Amino acid sequence: MQLGATHMEGGRCEFLVWAPACREVSLHQVSPRERVLPMEPQGNGYWRIIGEEVPPGSRYFYHLDGERDRPDPVSNYQPQGVHGPSQVIDHRHFAWSDHGWRGCALADLVIYELHVGTFTPAGTFDAVIERLPGLRDLGITAIELMPVAQFPGERNWGYDGVQPFAVQHSYGGPEGLKRLVDACHQLGLAVVLDVVYNHLGPEGNYLWDFGPYFTDHYRTPWGEAINFDGPHSDEVRRYFLQNALHWFKNYHIDALRLDAVHAIYDFSAKTFLQEMAEQTREFSLGNQRSCLLIAESDLNDPRIIRPAELGGYGLDAQWSDDFHHALHALITGEDLGYYGDFGSTGDLVKSYREGFVYSWRYSAFRKCRHGASAADRPAQQFVVCSQNHDQVGNRMRGERLIAQAGFEAAKLAAAAVILSPFIPLLFMGEEYGEDNPFPYFVSFEDEDLIAGVRRGRKEEFEDFHSQGEPPDPQSPETFAAARLDWSKRDKPGYRAMAAFYRELLRLRRENPVLTRRDKEHLEGWGLEDEKLLWL
Amino acid sequence: MQLGATHMEGGRCEFLVWAPACREVSLHQVSPRERVLPMEPQGNGYWRIIGEEVPPGSRYFYHLDGERDRPDPVSNYQPQGVHGPSQVIDHRHFAWSDHGWRGCALADLVIYELHVGTFTPAGTFDAVIERLPGLRDLGITAIELMPVAQFPGERNWGYDGVQPFAVQHSYGGPEGLKRLVDACHQLGLAVVLDVVYNHLGPEGNYLWDFGPYFTDHYRTPWGEAINFDGPHSDEVRRYFLQNALHWFKNYHIDALRLDAVHAIYDFSAKTFLQEMAEQTREFSLGNQRSCLLIAESDLNDPRIIRPAELGGYGLDAQWSDDFHHALHALITGEDLGYYGDFGSTGDLVKSYREGFVYSWRYSAFRKCRHGASAADRPAQQFVVCSQNHDQVGNRMRGERLIAQAGFEAAKLAAAAVILSPFIPLLFMGEEYGEDNPFPYFVSFEDEDLIAGVRRGRKEEFEDFHSQGEPPDPQSPETFAAARLDWSKRDKPGYRAMAAFYRELLRLRRENPVLTRRDKEHLEGWGLEDEKLLWL
Repeated sequence: MQLGATHMEGGRCEFLVWAPACREVSLHQVSPRERVLPMEPQGNGYWRIIGEEVPPGSRYFYHLDGERDRPDPVSNYQPQGVHGPSQVIDHRHFAWSDHGWRGCALADLVIYELHVGTFTPAGTFDAVIERLPGLRDLGITAIELMPVAQFPGERNWGYDGVQPFAVQHSYGGPEGLKRLVDACHQLGLAVVLDVVYNHLGPEGNYLWDFGPYFTDHYRTPWGEAINFDGPHSDEVRRYFLQNALHWFKNYHIDALRLDAVHAIYDFSAKTFLQEMAEQTREFSLGNQRSCLLIAESDLNDPRIIRPAELGGYGLDAQWSDDFHHALHALITGEDLGYYGDFGSTGDLVKSYREGFVYSWRYSAFRKCRHGASAADRPAQQFVVCSQNHDQVGNRMRGERLIAQAGFEAAKLAAAAVILSPFIPLLFMGEEYGEDNPFPYFVSFEDEDLIAGVRRGRKEEFEDFHSQGEPPDPQSPETFAAARLDWSKRDKPGYRAMAAFYRELLRLRRENPVLTRRDKEHLEGWGLEDEKLLWL
Repeated sequence: MQLGATHMEGGRCEFLVWAPACREVSLHQVSPRERVLPMEPQGNGYWRIIGEEVPPGSRYFYHLDGERDRPDPVSNYQPQGVHGPSQVIDHRHFAWSDHGWRGCALADLVIYELHVGTFTPAGTFDAVIERLPGLRDLGITAIELMPVAQFPGERNWGYDGVQPFAVQHSYGGPEGLKRLVDACHQLGLAVVLDVVYNHLGPEGNYLWDFGPYFTDHYRTPWGEAINFDGPHSDEVRRYFLQNALHWFKNYHIDALRLDAVHAIYDFSAKTFLQEMAEQTREFSLGNQRSCLLIAESDLNDPRIIRPAELGGYGLDAQWSDDFHHALHALITGEDLGYYGDFGSTGDLVKSYREGFVYSWRYSAFRKCRHGASAADRPAQQFVVCSQNHDQVGNRMRGERLIAQAGFEAAKLAAAAVILSPFIPLLFMGEEYGEDNPFPYFVSFEDEDLIAGVRRGRKEEFEDFHSQGEPPDPQSPETFAAARLDWSKRDKPGYRAMAAFYRELLRLRRENPVLTRRDKEHLEGWGLEDEKLLWL
C-alpha cells in the first residue's frame, strides 16, 4: 500500500491518505486545473482516489471534512513551504547514472556532516555538488546531510521538519537532492541522511488533523511524542517505515542517521526500530545495495546495535557521545553541564576500549546510573567525532573547538578521532579549521513561537554558560554567521590544517596498523596528572 | 545501607530515611515515650539517627521540615493504619522452624491464589493456617497471597497499598505473616507474594513529601508513574530492590509475583527488572534457597523472561493472559472487550504450543499489532489459569467461571489448566466450585476518592458489560459477598468438584505423560466448527 500521490500511466495519479480523524476527505487539486474530487474510504481510516489528468507537477491539498485544506502528510514536495499545496512527483523520471553503485560498507565510512543551507553561499544541493571533489580528495567516503525534510521558512537546522517525505524547497527540492546523491555516487561517495522520527516541528504540523500520530502517554522535550505503541500505531509505524524506504528507494540514500532514538518511546514487544532494521535489511538484500541505519541515542544502550538473536534491535551503528565528551573535556578542561561527567584520561581510554564510558556508572549530570557496557560490540558500530552540529551548535554562541581550544588542540582532536578504530565523523569546515561559529537558527512565521524559541534559548543556557546572551535564533545574521568561509582554505594556517586532515585520513586508509580496526587489538592507558594517553 | 528502622543491640535503633525533598528531618518518637530527635543529613538526601532506648514496638513518625508528621516510607508495620505512626520491628526475634527449607523449583509450582481478607471468615493470616493441610492434600505446592502491603482501611484487594514494606495490620501484621509462611514451609508449601512496584495507592501515599519517587514523564492508568529511570532513580530503585529482598529475607517468601510490570516504565540500559533479577539470584545463591520472580505483564514480551545473555531481563516466569482469554472465550463464547480478540480453538492450540497467542498479530481490542513469539521459552516459564482475581473480579459483578458457564464447563477449564505443561494457578474456591462472586472492594476514608472510585467503576463497564450496575465497591456487603463459603465443601456437587481437582493434580504429578512438561513434545490441533481440541 503506497501512501501519498503515486503517478500512474496515462496521466493518472493514485492518492492514498490515512485520515481516520476525518468524516470526509476530498482531493483539492489546485493546478494545473482546480477541482475538488471526493475520495473513497478504504477502511481502517484510509481514503483513496485515482485522479485522471493529474500530471507530475500538479499541486493539491487534501480537503478535510468539507472545512479545511491541508498539505499531504506524505507530500514529496512543498514548493511554497509548509503551509502551501503539495506537488505530485514522479520518481521514475530522474535519470540516475549510479547503476553500478552498491553502497558503502560500514567499516569504510568516513563521514562528513554538512548543513546544506550554510555549507555554501548559495545554500543549495547543487552548490554542494561543486565541493564534492574536494571532499573526496580529502579522504571522505560519505557526506551526511542534516535533515532536509520540509521545515518552516528557509533557515533551520532541520529538526523542525513537518513534512517528513518532502525535500526542502529552498535547498532545491526533490530534483536537487537526486542530483546531489547521483553526483556523490559518481565520485564514489555515499550519502547519509539525517531523519527525525521522534517528533515533528512546532509550525506547520498538520498531522493532528489526520489521525492519532501522537500520544500523550509519554513526554518528549520537543513536544508530543509520536504514537509508536498505542492504538492505531500500526499505521503510524507504516508511515515512518515507508519514509525510511522512501529515501533508500527514491533518492538512493545509503544510510539514515536516526535522530534521538531515545525519544522514540516504544514498549512494544517488537520495537519500531527493530521493524525498521528488518525492513531496511530486506530492501538492502532485494536491491543488492548496502543500506544502513545509524542511531543517535542518549541511552548508552547496546541493545540498539545488537543483532536480534542477542535481543537487540539490529541497527548497524550508533553515535558515541561519550567519546566526544571525554575528548572534549580532556582537551578544553570544560566542566559545565554534561562535561562535568568527564575529564579524566581514563574516560577516554575506556571509550576507546569499549565504546561507551558510562556503562551503568553514576552520572552526576543525569543524577542516576547510566548506560550498559558495549564491550561486546565491534568498533565499526560506533560513530565518533570531536565536533558535530549539536556539540558546536548547542553551545550558547555556537563556537567551534578551534575557536575555543586553538589550532594545536584541534589537530590533536582530529587525530584522536581519525586514527581511532571507530567511524570518524567530521563537521563541515573543521577540516580546514573553520573558525566561524555554528549557532542555532530558525525562521518561523508564528510570532508567539519565535518569542518562545528566543526565551527557551536563553533559559537553556542559564545553567550551562553563565555570561552573555545567545545570538537571536530568528535573525538572518545568525544564519549568515554560520556559513562556511571558503576563501579561508587558501590562507596559510587553514591550508596547513587541511593538509593535516588529508594526511590523517591517508594514514587511516593505508597504514597497516590503522586499517586493523578492532578494539580487541587496541591497548590503551593514561596518566591523569600529565593528561597523557597511549594507544 | 539498610533503609528504615533497624533494631540494634542495647535497646538502640538506627533510622535511615531518604528525604531529599526536606530541609530538615527529625525522628518523632511517639511511644513508649514521646520525644523529637533531630536527624543528621548523610549526603545524597539521606537522613540518619541512632536512637537510644528505642525498643522493638516503639512507634514513630518522621517530622519533616518542622511542619508535619509522616509515617516511615520503609515502615514495617502500621498498627493504626496508613495515616498512623510506624512501629519498630525486630526481625531477628521470630522463631522460624523452617531451617531445612530450600524453596520450591519453578517446575514444581502449583499455585493457589488467595485473598487473605476473604479466604476465611476471620480474614487473617492465622485463619489461613488452619486451611493449609486441606490445600496440601489437594495437591497445591504454593499459595500466592494477593498484596499484603499496608493499604487504606481494612477491605481492599491490595493494589492500593501505600506502605510497601509494612504488613497489613488487619490481617495480623508482620508476626501473622511470618507464622503463616512458617506453617506453609512446615507443610512443604511455598509462598508467593504479590507485590506492586508500578504505582502507589491513592490514599495515604506520603512518598511525595520525601522525594522524587514519581515522574511525570510517563502516564499509568492508576496515577503517577514511579521514577525508575529519571534523575534520582538510583535511590527509588534501591527502595524497591530492598523491598523485594525484604520479603525474601525477613519473611522467607519464596517468590514474588510482580504486579503489572508493563506499567514499570523504564528505558534504562539496565532495567529495574534486570537489576531485581540479578539481586534476587544473588540472594538465592547466597542463601541456598530458591527465590523466584514471576511477572504479570500485558506486553507479551518474551524479553522479560529471557536470560540476560539473550538480551532478556532474566525473570523466572510470567503470566500468560492469552492462555486464559483463549480458554475463557472458547468455553463461554464471550466476545466483549478483550475476549473479542479470542474465541477459536486455534488460539488455544497456539497458546499451548508457544505460550502467547498474540505474537505480533493485529489485536482489534488494542487496535495495533501485539506481542512477540515466546516459542523459545520453556513451558515452566508461563503461569496459566482459568480464573484469577483479575479475570473474575474485573467483571462487573465479579462472577466466577462456574456461575457463568456451569459445572461441566468449569471441570473442562480445570483440566485444560492443570494438565497443561505450564504452571497452573487456581483462584481460591474454584477447587470446590465456589459460586460466590469476587467483586471489587475498597474501604477508603476520603469521600471524594470514594465517589471517584464508584464513578470510575461504572464508567469502566460502559463498554464491557452493558446491563445493570456494578456493586458498590465501598460497601461492606460487597466485601462480605466475596468471602468463601467453606460450608459448601461438604455438599454433594462441591464435593465432587473438589475430588475432581484432587484427581487432576494427582495425574499431573504422577502420570508419566503429564510429568514430561515441555511444549516441544506436545502436539495440538483443533476443529473450529466442533470446538474440539486434541493435545
